[in-house]
Amino acid sequence: MAGKVAARRAALRDNLIDIAERTIAGDGLAALRARDLAAEAGCAVGAIYNVFGDLTDLVLSVNARTFQRLGADVAEALADAPQDPVEQLVIMAQAYHRFAAQNHNSWRALFEVERAPGEDAPDWYLHEMGQLFAYISDPLAVIFPSRSPEDLALLTRALFSSVHGIVLLGLDQASSGVPTSDIDRMIGLVLRQLTASSEKN
Amino acid sequence: MAGKVAARRAALRDNLIDIAERTIAGDGLAALRARDLAAEAGCAVGAIYNVFGDLTDLVLSVNARTFQRLGADVAEALADAPQDPVEQLVIMAQAYHRFAAQNHNSWRALFEVERAPGEDAPDWYLHEMGQLFAYISDPLAVIFPSRSPEDLALLTRALFSSVHGIVLLGLDQASSGVPTSDIDRMIGLVLRQLTASSEKN
Repeated sequence: MAGKVAARRAALRDNLIDIAERTIAGDGLAALRARDLAAEAGCAVGAIYNVFGDLTDLVLSVNARTFQRLGADVAEALADAPQDPVEQLVIMAQAYHRFAAQNHNSWRALFEVERAPGEDAPDWYLHEMGQLFAYISDPLAVIFPSRSPEDLALLTRALFSSVHGIVLLGLDQASSGVPTSDIDRMIGLVLRQLTASSEKN
Repeated sequence: MAGKVAARRAALRDNLIDIAERTIAGDGLAALRARDLAAEAGCAVGAIYNVFGDLTDLVLSVNARTFQRLGADVAEALADAPQDPVEQLVIMAQAYHRFAAQNHNSWRALFEVERAPGEDAPDWYLHEMGQLFAYISDPLAVIFPSRSPEDLALLTRALFSSVHGIVLLGLDQASSGVPTSDIDRMIGLVLRQLTASSEKN
């Protein structure tokens, strides 16, 4: 009996993540409502909170899937990239741009999760994000072999944040007609200049 | 009579912008609702739409004030900066960070305005943004005298977007305990490296 209950619970969990994933992809995070979810899953609203502590937990589960899809895209781009670490960074950043453009609402939801002030994301979530950061820090360690791990971690965050800002504002402008090819040009410009061998602090 | 009507209309307009400015600063753009605005202004909901085409028009008017305050802060930081164009960029970017941290909701609202797809912001709004961009492109033109105006414009956008991304993700992380001093370190790192004299494309 316990096995049956657990299996039903797991099935409901997967089903709710599927529905939330479609809702976020189609209409954005703001469109996610417990009542609509329950109606589509054919369960009571209370049943959602039996499976997830709150809607934020559910969104984090959707985001974990998005991180995994993003990671797979980046890995695929990297597989075809030349051995040059700077080119690897550029190609990964362009893959990031492509993913963001093609999965706009799901990608935005990665950065729109509401957390209580001072509350951290769960460990498994930070682990997912950390895996993506490793894609960046590996080539950076090759480019800057003499930097300390602490410096490399800061540079990794700075570089990711810069690319993120370019993609974010670039896609916003693209919705009012600015060509998206500028985004890849800006990515190339910033990354090649950032990784130029003349190291500065 | 016509003068009185126009004066009343102008007073209501200013009052609505004041109220919307306070609401956005205190509770964020998502908290702005026509019914609440009308109640606080002591007018009918319809009266709002006599003065502003829609709530987006009202938000743009609030954002124009925010741009002007941001511009004043940047100009003040620049007044005390050394003549070195790289240091000027760093000091302005740090002023941008400070403004964003101290005016978090108002600053976010600058980038959260909903526009119909393909619809551009009004000319006067783009003009306000353009003025801020001139603060960046002026020192860049000194640093890169041989770049074409088109290249400089792209570099200006890339540089602003990079700083914006660092501040945006940095302040998000700061809410879960990551020190904000890292933000200024990342800004310095990125800007000094981006403007390193070895020009690359």
